[in-house]
Amino acid sequence: MEFTAAVIAELLKGSVEGNPEAAVHDVSKIEEGRAGTLSFLANPKYEKYIYSTVSSIVIVNEDFVPQQPITATLIRVKNAYEAFGALLRLYEEQKPKKQGVSKLAAVASSVSLGAQVYVGEFTVISDNATIGDHVQLFPQVYIGEHVKIGEGTIIHPGAKIYEGCEIGARCIIHAGAIIGGDGFGFAPNQENNYEKVPQVGKVIMEDHVEIGANTTIDRATMGATILRKGVKLDNLIMIAHNVEVGENTVMAAQTGISGSTKIGSNCMFGGQVGLIGHIHIASGVKIAAQSGISKDIKEEGLVVQGSPAFEFGPYQRSYAIFRNLPKIRNQLIDLEHKISDLTSRA
Amino acid sequence: MEFTAAVIAELLKGSVEGNPEAAVHDVSKIEEGRAGTLSFLANPKYEKYIYSTVSSIVIVNEDFVPQQPITATLIRVKNAYEAFGALLRLYEEQKPKKQGVSKLAAVASSVSLGAQVYVGEFTVISDNATIGDHVQLFPQVYIGEHVKIGEGTIIHPGAKIYEGCEIGARCIIHAGAIIGGDGFGFAPNQENNYEKVPQVGKVIMEDHVEIGANTTIDRATMGATILRKGVKLDNLIMIAHNVEVGENTVMAAQTGISGSTKIGSNCMFGGQVGLIGHIHIASGVKIAAQSGISKDIKEEGLVVQGSPAFEFGPYQRSYAIFRNLPKIRNQLIDLEHKISDLTSRA
Amino acid sequence: MEFTAAVIAELLKGSVEGNPEAAVHDVSKIEEGRAGTLSFLANPKYEKYIYSTVSSIVIVNEDFVPQQPITATLIRVKNAYEAFGALLRLYEEQKPKKQGVSKLAAVASSVSLGAQVYVGEFTVISDNATIGDHVQLFPQVYIGEHVKIGEGTIIHPGAKIYEGCEIGARCIIHAGAIIGGDGFGFAPNQENNYEKVPQVGKVIMEDHVEIGANTTIDRATMGATILRKGVKLDNLIMIAHNVEVGENTVMAAQTGISGSTKIGSNCMFGGQVGLIGHIHIASGVKIAAQSGISKDIKEEGLVVQGSPAFEFGPYQRSYAIFRNLPKIRNQLIDLEHKISDLTSRA
Repeated sequence: MEFTAAVIAELLKGSVEGNPEAAVHDVSKIEEGRAGTLSFLANPKYEKYIYSTVSSIVIVNEDFVPQQPITATLIRVKNAYEAFGALLRLYEEQKPKKQGVSKLAAVASSVSLGAQVYVGEFTVISDNATIGDHVQLFPQVYIGEHVKIGEGTIIHPGAKIYEGCEIGARCIIHAGAIIGGDGFGFAPNQENNYEKVPQVGKVIMEDHVEIGANTTIDRATMGATILRKGVKLDNLIMIAHNVEVGENTVMAAQTGISGSTKIGSNCMFGGQVGLIGHIHIASGVKIAAQSGISKDIKEEGLVVQGSPAFEFGPYQRSYAIFRNLPKIRNQLIDLEHKISDLTSRA
Repeated sequence: MEFTAAVIAELLKGSVEGNPEAAVHDVSKIEEGRAGTLSFLANPKYEKYIYSTVSSIVIVNEDFVPQQPITATLIRVKNAYEAFGALLRLYEEQKPKKQGVSKLAAVASSVSLGAQVYVGEFTVISDNATIGDHVQLFPQVYIGEHVKIGEGTIIHPGAKIYEGCEIGARCIIHAGAIIGGDGFGFAPNQENNYEKVPQVGKVIMEDHVEIGANTTIDRATMGATILRKGVKLDNLIMIAHNVEVGENTVMAAQTGISGSTKIGSNCMFGGQVGLIGHIHIASGVKIAAQSGISKDIKEEGLVVQGSPAFEFGPYQRSYAIFRNLPKIRNQLIDLEHKISDLTSRA
Repeated sequence: MEFTAAVIAELLKGSVEGNPEAAVHDVSKIEEGRAGTLSFLANPKYEKYIYSTVSSIVIVNEDFVPQQPITATLIRVKNAYEAFGALLRLYEEQKPKKQGVSKLAAVASSVSLGAQVYVGEFTVISDNATIGDHVQLFPQVYIGEHVKIGEGTIIHPGAKIYEGCEIGARCIIHAGAIIGGDGFGFAPNQENNYEKVPQVGKVIMEDHVEIGANTTIDRATMGATILRKGVKLDNLIMIAHNVEVGENTVMAAQTGISGSTKIGSNCMFGGQVGLIGHIHIASGVKIAAQSGISKDIKEEGLVVQGSPAFEFGPYQRSYAIFRNLPKIRNQLIDLEHKISDLTSRA
């Protein structure tokens, strides 16, 4: 299928700059542009590529001011990245969706299956589970007893949902993710061996949540581990028992949240961040990659770095001096000599 | 089912303070208490909730001294957390256990299957594996050739045990855990490409070990990677080839242990800790979250922090000054000026 | 099977020192030597064991000079570790290989299957996939639509390859690895909710790549995430969308690479390293464990440490002073007193 700049601009409510009949049949990164493809420019770091790209059409922000001539036809929109995403979503939605229950799946007779679901080969749906309309369960997925899956949710191959967990509507769970494994709870007994504290809670995931590959969300000891609406978690993240993550909070890969910690909405955590347990993080907080959080953050929107973390600016200043510590030490030694001289002279 | 405070106190050998006929039918966290539920208070951080909770019964430590009036009936025991865990275990043990071998499992004819085992759908048990009595293998588990699983062990959906590994009795392995993958061993050849060093060893896991979701334990190059009795590993942990972890050592999520490192018993590692290879860690050592260990720790019970780590107290003191480095630098500049003044005057 | 020192030396083009008729039937680590086994000594840290080992034969580097008498027969070779690896590979290659397509696998009729492939139980191969000769797909593997797998590649139980990804020849993918999950791409919409940016690219893995257990490689937003020939990734690693990793680069466990970052060839990354997105790393760069890389590294072969990282030597020097910061602060206070004295006297 081919689309012209005029058609795309209409879809995106943007304006064409250049040839409205320029046509594309595929998409490409601007730095890997090919004739007949559509690209976008949002991150200024990539601006240099727009002057040499052979992509036929490039979507740009409406306030983009070229510094050199551009060959490609431009489509100007409010937010180039968002518009490009919207276009890809339109394209994806046109693809035929998998449907039907494979004869090689194991669906318990007590399961409530919605309309137009897809259940792939070797997927297990256990007793009393409830699967909403249009849900897609790829092959080798495991759905435990009494699990509820909201409408339109997609679960990729091999993800496992332990018994009793509740997944909202229009969620996406990637391959290998584990939802509802036991929290890490043990109590030492009189012989100083650890006895397991049974984890009798569950996981509640609200609507529009996306969970990355091989990420693990533990069930609560009691009550629920909760991911609020719109939470997005990257791959290999660990969410411990009884954690609560607020609406639209996003976390990059390999971050770990310890038990019972409560996180506000619209937070952004970098990769490999760690939070200790039983703390509260205000909404809008940003945490730099690899930081460690050891206590409450009460100020909304605070940006922190370090392990343990403190405010971003002061951290940067301390770290700049850390890099110069050998110089600092030499200055100190130098001063000691000078003072020793002065003292002997005094 | 309902239980009264009197009945629970008898089970736990505790004493009732309040109404012995107070009855509960569920459990709840003290901060999420509901009428008709049983809670516990162990962590002093949560004490404030006991004064407002509507939980009907709360288990507390026998030395707990309330600072305000409490509505709930109390049950005093030696160790509230352990007692609550014991109660949950009693409750869990009453639940009916899954049994029988699914017709949709693939069990090789040479497999030795114990009594009253459960084998879920699409689980594979390969040639010459030995499965002990009362073992529960959930759906989609893979058991390689010659693997041995001790009695009463539970393996959750999708966990994979490579050939030749030995799992003890009463272990729990969570979903997605991989036991016995190849160690990371390569030798550069003359063209400077890496040639794989085959990993011909195995993993030995003793009794009462618990392994978290998506944790990976690599097989030894030769010999065995060993987890001693009672080891508890959280999710997404990496144990490399030929590591040995001593009895009752516990590790929080996302920690990684490099090859051939030997760890003593009763150690406690925080989350996201990393250890280099070929070192020895004494028993009882505690490592703060996100720390990195680059050499032997010979002193039993030492507590360390940092990357690379050193003793906890000194680390805390150094880090406190790190936060104030801009101030330190300013003091230094100030001194330089003063000395310059003094020198010019001298 | 037994092999004599003479036979082994001939295979390895090495020379025997001791009894050429010494015979072995198994291998062992030198520190765990047993009579009738073959060991090797490469890491000088283990030299002490060669003087007490009861291994019958030990492979050593040709320039090894014993400091004490040795009981074992020695075989001297250019590179003991490589030679030992070569021997194990010979041994492994003799083992009978699994073959044939299990009746319990689900192979779509449009799949192109090579000669002498192995397809294990409950493995799914989706429409239009192409599987090369001698490929081994263990049980419970998922191969998406249009995936290509090169000849001789081995995929261990439960690994998942999303649609459209291309895997080279003679690769090894360990259990639970996820290849081609969606990149982490979202654009905030006008209501400040995150809209998914569909990830329409793929993963390209060239020949001789090895991927550890539960490692995740995300598909590109557009174009391809690329692992060049000979890349070796340990367990639980995260490679984000549009990353490119150069030839023979190796990464230890739990390392994470953010989106669109390009890494040169022959790099070595320690465990738990993190790289931000959109940066370039020159060839031959070495990164110490737990380091964080926040900007381009342009100098080939540079060794760095820290978070954010800088050169290894300077980092070590700064960190040595960090450990002594309380002493530095005391020196500073002491100087202030001395200057105050001098000033009052002046």
